[in-house]
Amino acid sequence: MSEFSIIEKYFSVLGKQRADVIKGVGDDAALVNTSNIQSLAISVDTLIEGVHFPSVTSAYDIGWKSLAVNLSDMAAMGAEPRWATLALTLPKVDETWLSEFSRGFADLAGLFNVQLIGGDTTRGALSISVQIIGSTLETGALKRDKADVGDGIYVTGFLGDAALGLKSLNEVLPLSDTEKQELLVKLNRPQPKVTESLKLASYINAAIDVSDGLVSDLSHILQASQVAAIVNVNSIPVSRAYRWCNNFTQSYDLALCGGDDYELCFTVAKENEREIMVEAEKLSLQCTRIGEITEGTTLTIMDGKNEYSVQQKAYDHF
Amino acid sequence: MSEFSIIEKYFSVLGKQRADVIKGVGDDAALVNTSNIQSLAISVDTLIEGVHFPSVTSAYDIGWKSLAVNLSDMAAMGAEPRWATLALTLPKVDETWLSEFSRGFADLAGLFNVQLIGGDTTRGALSISVQIIGSTLETGALKRDKADVGDGIYVTGFLGDAALGLKSLNEVLPLSDTEKQELLVKLNRPQPKVTESLKLASYINAAIDVSDGLVSDLSHILQASQVAAIVNVNSIPVSRAYRWCNNFTQSYDLALCGGDDYELCFTVAKENEREIMVEAEKLSLQCTRIGEITEGTTLTIMDGKNEYSVQQKAYDHF
Repeated sequence: MSEFSIIEKYFSVLGKQRADVIKGVGDDAALVNTSNIQSLAISVDTLIEGVHFPSVTSAYDIGWKSLAVNLSDMAAMGAEPRWATLALTLPKVDETWLSEFSRGFADLAGLFNVQLIGGDTTRGALSISVQIIGSTLETGALKRDKADVGDGIYVTGFLGDAALGLKSLNEVLPLSDTEKQELLVKLNRPQPKVTESLKLASYINAAIDVSDGLVSDLSHILQASQVAAIVNVNSIPVSRAYRWCNNFTQSYDLALCGGDDYELCFTVAKENEREIMVEAEKLSLQCTRIGEITEGTTLTIMDGKNEYSVQQKAYDHF
Repeated sequence: MSEFSIIEKYFSVLGKQRADVIKGVGDDAALVNTSNIQSLAISVDTLIEGVHFPSVTSAYDIGWKSLAVNLSDMAAMGAEPRWATLALTLPKVDETWLSEFSRGFADLAGLFNVQLIGGDTTRGALSISVQIIGSTLETGALKRDKADVGDGIYVTGFLGDAALGLKSLNEVLPLSDTEKQELLVKLNRPQPKVTESLKLASYINAAIDVSDGLVSDLSHILQASQVAAIVNVNSIPVSRAYRWCNNFTQSYDLALCGGDDYELCFTVAKENEREIMVEAEKLSLQCTRIGEITEGTTLTIMDGKNEYSVQQKAYDHF
C-alpha cells in the first residue's frame, strides 16, 4: 500500500463530519471556517512506543490514547475541540493494526465532535503525533498563570491508577485480574474531561491536566502564577485498588508522580468553592479538594503534621 | 536536560513574534486570535531521518527543511502562514544539534513571519513533525480540484535538482564540487513559494506543490479535477547541471519523479496566461509552461512525437 492509499482507506473520513470543515483530508492542507471564532487553542502531543505506551498496547487503545492526551490539553484550556491532524509513523503497513488504530481514534473523536482533517503517514519507528485545535470560550481560556493565594486546589477523579496499571504489567501486585484490567483501562483509554471543563470553567482560576503526575503539573501552575501550595497527601483521591496496594507500599508516590491520569487539576477562589462543588455534582464529576494556594513559590506536601517526602521523580518524557 | 528545559531553552521564542498570538509556548495549548480570519489552512508533514533527509544532513538544514516542506503546502493553498507547532523526537539530548536545528527553523520562520507556538519533545528515533496553520485569501484558497480543460500547466523554478543532489551523495556524477554543493542546497534548503503564490493566486485555477515529483503531484490535480493532461518533456525546466548530467543519462526521470523540489505546479485558464507571466516576471519568478489540461483522466508525457516512458516510480514515503 502506498501512502495515499493508506490515507484514503483509513483516514479520509474519521470522527464527526463537521459543518465548519470546508475541505478535509485530500489536498495540500485542510480548510476550516473560522468566521465565528474569536480565538483558538492549539496543541500537539506525541506518543512513542515503549515511552508513552507499553509495546503490548492494542492498536485500538493507541488510537484512542493518542487523541485522548490531546483532548485533555483542550480540557485544561477550557477549549472546545474541533479539528485534529495526525502524523503517523509506522514500521510497516499492517492493515489489521491500521484498521484497529483508526477505529480507536474515531470512536473517541466521535464522542467529542472532533473531525480528523489532515495527516501524514511515514515509515519508521512507531510514533503518533496528534495536533488538536479547539475554540475557546468567550469568557477566555483557562490558563496556568491565574492561581491566587487562598484558592482551593482541586483534582478530578482518582490519581495513580494509570501508573499502577503500568506497574501491574511488570510486577506482581496483590490485585485480582478484574482489578488489574480496570487499571489498564485507565492507562489505555483515558477519559479526557472536556465537557466537564467547559461547564466548570467560569468557576476556575488556573487549570492544567494531570499528564506527568500531580507534583509536576501542579508545580507548573505554581511557577506560572508565582505562588506556593500546601497539599494534604491524605486528601489525594485514590481508588479502592490503589488504597489496597497502598496497605503494602505505604506510598502515595504513584498518585503524586505517576503520570498518565489525564484528570484535571485546578484552583478555585474561596467565593466559588461551594458553587463549583454543586456544579460538579450535577455533572457526576468526582472533584476533590486537596490543598490550598499560599504565598511563596514551593509545593509542600503534608502527611498529617509531617512533610511527606516524595521518593519517585516526576515522569519525564526524556 | 528535561523535556521542559529543552523547550524553554531552544523553542520558547522562535520565529517572528506575532501580534495575533495570545499565548505561545508554555501552557497546555497555545492561544491565537482569529477574530479577523475567515478561514484557515492546516497541514502537517513529518520528516524521518534516512527517509526524508540523508543521515549526513546538518541540524540547521533539518530545521530549515522541516518548516520549508510545510510552508510549501501553504504556498500550494495560497495561504499566508502564521503559526507552527513542532513535535520533535530525538534519540538523545545534544545541545549543539538542538541549537543548530532551532536556528535553521527560526531563520526560515522569520523570513515568512511564522511563530512557533507549541510543541512536544520526546525520546526516540529522530523524527520531526511540523504543523502549519495559515489564513487563506478572501478570494478563496487554491485547491487541486479546479483544473479546467484548456488550462495551461505551469511549474516554477527548476525540477530535479534536489533529487540530483541526493544522487550525488551516493554516485559519481560529472559535476564540479561547486555544482554538487548548489544541488545540495536545493535538497536541504528548499525555498517555499509562499509570497509568489499569494501574489499569483487570482490567476490560478488549480495548484499543488511539487514534493513527491511532478508526475505524482500533477496526477493528484488530474484526479481531483477529473481531467487529463499532456506534458511536453522537453519543456520541463531543468538547471544547467541537470542538463549536463542529462547528456549522459538521456533521462528526465529525476525531474519528473524525483521529489523534494518544493516548486509549485498550477493550471491557468487561457485568458489569464499572458497576465500571469507578466506578474511572474515582476516577481522574478521563473515560470514555465509545460503542457495543457485536456479531456480524459490520464497524464501523457510526450517527447516530440513519441510518448516518453517514465522508468522511475514516483517517490513514496512508504
